[in-house]
Amino acid sequence: MDQMTDWSPFTQRARDWFETLRTRICTAFEDIEREAGSDAAFSYTPWDRHTEDDSEGGGGVRAVMKGRVFEKVGVNVSTVHGTFAPQFAGTINGASADAPGFTATGISLVAHMANPHVPAVHMNTRFLTTSKAWFGGGADLNPPIPYAEDTEAFHAAFRAACAPFDPGWYERYAKWADEYFFIPHRGVSRGVGGIFYDHLECAAEAQWDRNFAFTRAVGEAFLEVFPRIVRRRMGAEWTPADKQTQLEWRGRYAEFNLVYDRGTLFGLKTGGNVDAILMSLPPEAVWS
Amino acid sequence: MDQMTDWSPFTQRARDWFETLRTRICTAFEDIEREAGSDAAFSYTPWDRHTEDDSEGGGGVRAVMKGRVFEKVGVNVSTVHGTFAPQFAGTINGASADAPGFTATGISLVAHMANPHVPAVHMNTRFLTTSKAWFGGGADLNPPIPYAEDTEAFHAAFRAACAPFDPGWYERYAKWADEYFFIPHRGVSRGVGGIFYDHLECAAEAQWDRNFAFTRAVGEAFLEVFPRIVRRRMGAEWTPADKQTQLEWRGRYAEFNLVYDRGTLFGLKTGGNVDAILMSLPPEAVWS
Repeated sequence: MDQMTDWSPFTQRARDWFETLRTRICTAFEDIEREAGSDAAFSYTPWDRHTEDDSEGGGGVRAVMKGRVFEKVGVNVSTVHGTFAPQFAGTINGASADAPGFTATGISLVAHMANPHVPAVHMNTRFLTTSKAWFGGGADLNPPIPYAEDTEAFHAAFRAACAPFDPGWYERYAKWADEYFFIPHRGVSRGVGGIFYDHLECAAEAQWDRNFAFTRAVGEAFLEVFPRIVRRRMGAEWTPADKQTQLEWRGRYAEFNLVYDRGTLFGLKTGGNVDAILMSLPPEAVWS
Repeated sequence: MDQMTDWSPFTQRARDWFETLRTRICTAFEDIEREAGSDAAFSYTPWDRHTEDDSEGGGGVRAVMKGRVFEKVGVNVSTVHGTFAPQFAGTINGASADAPGFTATGISLVAHMANPHVPAVHMNTRFLTTSKAWFGGGADLNPPIPYAEDTEAFHAAFRAACAPFDPGWYERYAKWADEYFFIPHRGVSRGVGGIFYDHLECAAEAQWDRNFAFTRAVGEAFLEVFPRIVRRRMGAEWTPADKQTQLEWRGRYAEFNLVYDRGTLFGLKTGGNVDAILMSLPPEAVWS
């Protein structure tokens, strides 16, 4: 593949996967609500950003569920294309003021849980093209009240997802997550980490196949491990003090997403759907 | 005055005013709590940012009250000096990587009210020196449930404060507030405005006197009008739906402060006290 590659069939394949994964995750989360005696279900809201001349286009579907176990969970899939604003283009891999065109498809998920003993979680994977083409993504676990057993299970799942592809990836991507999911002004991590990867470049078809397989493995790992952790903790008793801990922790989470998160910035700068972009914000937060 | 002016006596005079104003405001707000049958009082927490060699120094006092009328109000005074980080220096009036030194003294106030019919409010005034010296500040009213009568009273107070100085200032500074206190990604104003001014430069002593007098007038106007508005609304009945409106509105307020507010950015970039900087965040917020 060279710079003349038509990426659209690849974008379509990635999109199909992200939408399939979304549906499987939503089903898995609704199953958990059933086990808790709730009939909560995701509601789906499509949005689009087409301009009349289709120079800016695409859209997505925002899925939100407010349940008994999942206080608020959002799963957004989107597939968009357009041109970056000149100043912003220079900050994006393979784009510039002279070559500002892009396509992006991805899935993004944030779950805020009712029970403070159940960790919140974030997962996002995406495929982007500019003059380059690459995958990126990650997942991190965000327990207001951490349990070593959960942290280990989460990391083990992603270590296993990385292993068949490159023995060095888990270590590198876990470190990247530790660096990325950090709140500098507080001097604290936002959670207990996971993995973060970006610019996993596709310069040849074999690389695309490998990187796409890895991105699918990340999604599968998430789908296997997170429901397991939820089921382990969802029955735990919690006190008002635990809830307060959770609400204060969510304040830190909102700070990270609004001040530092690149995905939030990317969305706001490219005219994405505000409700979809900010779906990551907690249902309720306090600042003391 | 030229660039060799020793600004420290002027900084001291400005600081004395900001601290006096702080004390008068805190007393006025505690009086309101008494009228509501509460014995809430401000608690004062000093903080400092001195390095051992005093190249970075100063500090401030954070005053916070959690009362019956004032759900959470913070009033911070700070007087700091140091050098800007090279990349940040270029973004500040009169500073550069070659001349990164600065001093800053100011007062900053944010009040989040228990009753959704009582508007939240922000007020901040400050005096800064780099190779230049200037005043800046402003105040804006942030009602979850707006009343035209309150908006008019608030604007009238600042119009009157501006009038003796320059007949064009109110219009210019009110417009600046409308532009500044705006949430681009939502396409909405964060409140009903007020005034915003910056780079009110002091190149001669007569300008310093005038600009300092104006800054005092802004403080006096705030002290006169805001308690009056609070007393007008604090007895109003409110419903759970009103509270929900307020909590959702506070989510927008947190978004503005964390994504766009220059004062927040300035504080975080200059190693200010995080609790003082983020004291503006609401005690509780929701995102639907």
